[in-house]
Amino acid sequence: MPLGDYCHSSILQKLKSEGKQIYVKREDLLPKYFGGNKVRILASIFSEIDIQDITRVVSFGSRHSNHIRVLAAMMFERDIPCDLIILDDESNKSITEGNELLAILYNANIYFCPSNEAREYIDSHLCNLKKQGEKVLFIPGGGHTVDGANGYVLAVDEITNQTHGLDIDCIFLPTGTGTTQAGLIFGSKLRNWHVKIIGVTVARSPERCRKEIRSLLTELNKNYDKQFPFYDDDIEVIDNSEKPYGVIDKDIVDTIRAVAKSDGIVLDPIYNAKTFWKMKSLIKDKEYSSYKNILYLNTGGTPNIFTKDFSEALRQ
Amino acid sequence: MPLGDYCHSSILQKLKSEGKQIYVKREDLLPKYFGGNKVRILASIFSEIDIQDITRVVSFGSRHSNHIRVLAAMMFERDIPCDLIILDDESNKSITEGNELLAILYNANIYFCPSNEAREYIDSHLCNLKKQGEKVLFIPGGGHTVDGANGYVLAVDEITNQTHGLDIDCIFLPTGTGTTQAGLIFGSKLRNWHVKIIGVTVARSPERCRKEIRSLLTELNKNYDKQFPFYDDDIEVIDNSEKPYGVIDKDIVDTIRAVAKSDGIVLDPIYNAKTFWKMKSLIKDKEYSSYKNILYLNTGGTPNIFTKDFSEALRQ
Repeated sequence: MPLGDYCHSSILQKLKSEGKQIYVKREDLLPKYFGGNKVRILASIFSEIDIQDITRVVSFGSRHSNHIRVLAAMMFERDIPCDLIILDDESNKSITEGNELLAILYNANIYFCPSNEAREYIDSHLCNLKKQGEKVLFIPGGGHTVDGANGYVLAVDEITNQTHGLDIDCIFLPTGTGTTQAGLIFGSKLRNWHVKIIGVTVARSPERCRKEIRSLLTELNKNYDKQFPFYDDDIEVIDNSEKPYGVIDKDIVDTIRAVAKSDGIVLDPIYNAKTFWKMKSLIKDKEYSSYKNILYLNTGGTPNIFTKDFSEALRQ
Repeated sequence: MPLGDYCHSSILQKLKSEGKQIYVKREDLLPKYFGGNKVRILASIFSEIDIQDITRVVSFGSRHSNHIRVLAAMMFERDIPCDLIILDDESNKSITEGNELLAILYNANIYFCPSNEAREYIDSHLCNLKKQGEKVLFIPGGGHTVDGANGYVLAVDEITNQTHGLDIDCIFLPTGTGTTQAGLIFGSKLRNWHVKIIGVTVARSPERCRKEIRSLLTELNKNYDKQFPFYDDDIEVIDNSEKPYGVIDKDIVDTIRAVAKSDGIVLDPIYNAKTFWKMKSLIKDKEYSSYKNILYLNTGGTPNIFTKDFSEALRQ
């Protein structure tokens, strides 16, 4: 691989799967900041922002969030103080692990607030900083912005190059805020690549995800000066709410073990193992029988392996 | 990157270093089993062994050991029960983290024994298994064998291809048992590549490392039917015993932060951060002034980031 822009590209791994052929796009191996889809999303956001006058960046997320880790890393690199509001109980403050541990390594300032008080807490935090004369940049949770989605519009080039001749007919991925899925949908339309893109929910309802994705697609059309029509069929989001966000059950542990055994990949327990589990059960259905070559987008999150919750789930 | 043998190759990253140019060979990103040099070492060992009749594999190491993690992963893949003897106090049994947590994910059987009783414990464990009729394969700690070293004899091909035209004049790497360094020394001699290979101790004395490396070089000469002379000068091992194995001090945390800030790489606290720290101080010396282009072999160990010890060191 050349010495050039390798830091924003990842390999494709062919799984030893039976039946349908699955290829995994190893975004978890993106070389910087412990990888994952947020690397492309945040790199894309910061490529569009003049950060010269910014004195502080603020964002929020759960303690499992890959977004908070990658944002902390990128701000550390740029020498900009970074405040991260973790949506969790103060009482869990003493546990420092996974993505949160890395955010501390990257010198981020960590604040805690219960999920149901998030909006007020963030508003008041931003208001205080402005009073103190700080020039604050607020990044929405998950980097959910049109510039963030553009990271995956651009990634489609890399994906189509790598999958050339493989006859990929659908892409599965975990869908949290919908940024990655919106980018892939728009990018494949832009390149006239006929591939079905199927998001599997990891946190929000499918309705909420579809609405957010549609809204990003409208913005992308505007930014690219296009008028692509997007039908409901183009925005497929599968409900996986039977596996609530952050809960690690036996199916998840079994899926992680199965993929580790067959292909040496360790899926993370919060985003990808549960999506992979859902995909495996879906593709047995008649509805999916026409899909022969599947691309699975591993969006990363391996720091979440090294947590008390996962260690306990392993021993059950 | 093609779909072929990508699982045993890693990228080269050019650091934004001042003064001397440093390139990092990202063995930590080898795509399977969380990567690291033990992937090449153990893959090389198992390519030479007929495992058909083996019913159990036994090895040992510290809880930080990358070897135990990769061995557990490979045995899990091959469906062979794996017994790992962790050289540590029983009293630390309740902490499950980092590489040990992964070994449990890979279904290894974990035993504990104090370091000073290792030999008796291992002998008695092996003896009991044989009595039970098991066909046991014992792998020395760290995969320290001539077949293991051969993994890095072969890796020299990949390294010379990637560094073609970069005028690399020396390689720095962490040296634990000496397997990796022996492989690199022999491999560069075999390809007539004039590069100085400098190991930095992470656990044992330089004398012990040199002796072990020399002994592997003799065996490699035999296996390759060569009679390369190896002079003391060819086997350079730098003493870093001021940083004892497993101890994470301020220099280590500062080094991890510095490289994360400049280049987005998270070095592990047990093997690479302390070697990198030593290298940075050494290359300021006059003795190293002739080296302009340095290759640093990042031998992996990122699971060791996610530990109580590191989290505590971060907060000091």
